[in-house]
Amino acid sequence: MAKKNAFYAQSGGVTAVINASACGLIEAARKHKAKIGKVYAGRNGIIGALTEDLIDTSKETAAAIAALRFTPAGAFGSARYKLKSLEANKREYERLIEVFKAHDIGYFFYNGGGDSADTCYKVSQLSEAMGYPIVAIHVPKTVDNDLPITDCCPGFGSVAKYIAVSTLEASLDVRSMCKTSTKVFVLEVMGRHAGWIAAAGGLVEGHGIPVVILFPEVDFDQQRFIARVDKLVKEHGYCTVVVSEGCHYPDGKFLAEQGSKDAFGHAQLGGAAPVVAGLVKQALGHKFHWAVADYLQRAARHIASKTDVKQAYELGAKAVDLALKGHNAVMPTVDRLSDVPYKYKIGLAPLSKVANVEKFMPKDFITADGFGITAKCKRYLAPLINGEDYPKYKGGLPVYATLKNAAVAKKLAAFDLK
Amino acid sequence: MAKKNAFYAQSGGVTAVINASACGLIEAARKHKAKIGKVYAGRNGIIGALTEDLIDTSKETAAAIAALRFTPAGAFGSARYKLKSLEANKREYERLIEVFKAHDIGYFFYNGGGDSADTCYKVSQLSEAMGYPIVAIHVPKTVDNDLPITDCCPGFGSVAKYIAVSTLEASLDVRSMCKTSTKVFVLEVMGRHAGWIAAAGGLVEGHGIPVVILFPEVDFDQQRFIARVDKLVKEHGYCTVVVSEGCHYPDGKFLAEQGSKDAFGHAQLGGAAPVVAGLVKQALGHKFHWAVADYLQRAARHIASKTDVKQAYELGAKAVDLALKGHNAVMPTVDRLSDVPYKYKIGLAPLSKVANVEKFMPKDFITADGFGITAKCKRYLAPLINGEDYPKYKGGLPVYATLKNAAVAKKLAAFDLK
Repeated sequence: MAKKNAFYAQSGGVTAVINASACGLIEAARKHKAKIGKVYAGRNGIIGALTEDLIDTSKETAAAIAALRFTPAGAFGSARYKLKSLEANKREYERLIEVFKAHDIGYFFYNGGGDSADTCYKVSQLSEAMGYPIVAIHVPKTVDNDLPITDCCPGFGSVAKYIAVSTLEASLDVRSMCKTSTKVFVLEVMGRHAGWIAAAGGLVEGHGIPVVILFPEVDFDQQRFIARVDKLVKEHGYCTVVVSEGCHYPDGKFLAEQGSKDAFGHAQLGGAAPVVAGLVKQALGHKFHWAVADYLQRAARHIASKTDVKQAYELGAKAVDLALKGHNAVMPTVDRLSDVPYKYKIGLAPLSKVANVEKFMPKDFITADGFGITAKCKRYLAPLINGEDYPKYKGGLPVYATLKNAAVAKKLAAFDLK
Repeated sequence: MAKKNAFYAQSGGVTAVINASACGLIEAARKHKAKIGKVYAGRNGIIGALTEDLIDTSKETAAAIAALRFTPAGAFGSARYKLKSLEANKREYERLIEVFKAHDIGYFFYNGGGDSADTCYKVSQLSEAMGYPIVAIHVPKTVDNDLPITDCCPGFGSVAKYIAVSTLEASLDVRSMCKTSTKVFVLEVMGRHAGWIAAAGGLVEGHGIPVVILFPEVDFDQQRFIARVDKLVKEHGYCTVVVSEGCHYPDGKFLAEQGSKDAFGHAQLGGAAPVVAGLVKQALGHKFHWAVADYLQRAARHIASKTDVKQAYELGAKAVDLALKGHNAVMPTVDRLSDVPYKYKIGLAPLSKVANVEKFMPKDFITADGFGITAKCKRYLAPLINGEDYPKYKGGLPVYATLKNAAVAKKLAAFDLK
């Protein structure tokens, strides 16, 4: 392919390391100036492409781009905005191609989860159909760790580390207090319909902490749950409960819903922790405390996993490598080679097999009683939370990059988002 | 005083650095073996003294005691158990003296907040009255930072750092998402009736984050609050709200109460964040997220402030020094000498002036509109969150000490706690 510009966008919920992927991708592109011209980023994700609101990343210094490796959240802005089927959203797909044409963009790098993989795949299909060739590469990102094929997803390892560390620390607190005060601590974690993040709470068992995990993959059984908490409190004096936001009753009803839905039509979850704490109080009378970590967990770059940061960077860089090698409609993956010592290589998956597939916790990662993680799961998780990768600090606070985000001059008429 | 054993107990809610005070105190005592025999710790705080459940800290290695400096929560167990007036609780105060006599204890080191300072003071009064001399020294500890006289309280600086870092990280997340998704993020923090912890959220303003703080010291004015959020979202596209658990309406009613009370008779707070988020949604329609940090904030040794850890250690060590110099019924304090460069010395306060006095945010620390912190407050807070003091990690998790906590043989008949 002749020299073309590239488009990069961040999609969906951001993470502690999505900017590390941006860093890897932009640094890799800058090494191939004969093939890749400028890297334009979408301001607020795909919205930036649709509205021709492009950011010229070539205006950023090498130091600013390098700092992205240590900066959480989405440096260019992200979006929850799903392009539906080609038929229903043809106008928007065509607009994308129009903007890409206008700015001589030949590479589409999309950094997101399952929904974004679907969009990325459709862009590649449409570009073929419209006769304007676009190389479309998806860079995986999701704290939920629910993408198929890849062994893990960038963003997950850091959340898992945050949840494991926080569960350990809060549990030591409860252990100190349980004689006369709090006996049950409930921590609500993200993960949507997959229990990967909740599973990370199980890593504290190695530190002697009694913990009950409530997975979305296991229908909530109130009676058995209360019996389990009762047993642990009698044995240890206290226990910690890690509940996934996606935990639900057998009829599918979530333990708590805020009632609203996001742009992808998913229910916005939150509030399971106080529900679970209330059930314990009612049944057993124990004093409780609860926490909802929410964005704190996925933005926690200060305690990011070194493994996760490294992989996020590598997958971003690999996307450029794949594009230059002629791949299209693919996603670089983490392929695990061994648990101990932890070894992996960067592999490849076709987007047709990634789009809209959710990967849940395998049955053999959850203990038979449904409340814990197996040794196999611990072997899976351990390397993903391994290593610390601290940002620099100034005056007690981390030094996080804020980019110039200079706009590229528009060439097209305005476009109304529906 | 002839050589005597010492008693040390942790009281009330534990912190990320209360064990650093224990470390300083025990290490200092071990340097004065001619004056101080063994340091006995109360298992589960003062409960351990009443039930003669003493821990022999001399059984711990120097390395184990040194590791306390890096370990959050209460290594010997804490208690929420308040001894009331000498008249109402005479039986318990007499039991304390009886246990101290039986184990040749001449030093009473009590590590806690305002209620504990009161208990410590009463023990010193009673020991005089009963003719059994006890040197009673209070070591300050409270994340709420509400003790008088001392410039700050060990535990606070680390929570403040956690809240400032978390507010910054979560705000960057919201900033990334606000174009199409979450526009308002609400973080609920501890602090009871004092807004010190909430104030720490204001430190992110220097990073360009629009933040609204809801202090317990300022009556909640719903209309003005909504107007402020509306203005910030219009200007910045998003905003972050940091709400103190003690925030209340003009009539004193808390934004959210769980309805239960702790052993000190204080209302157990929690749940203000979803209330505030709901008000914003109802008035402005913005998509929101909320988090309740709860124990995560006060146990977060992984992001402790170096200043805080150092002061916690020094105050523990100073307690021994004061006792050996003949002081009684006093508390070592942090006396600030200058903001920039930050300088302080360890001073001294009589317990009669500390007990049961709460220190709130001064008026000139809160902006005129009631929603932010002044430059003066920022100068106060900045040094307290400064510096990182990371624990060691193994396999992705911090290495926190668990002590042997060997029991001392009992010499007295059992005692029933009422």
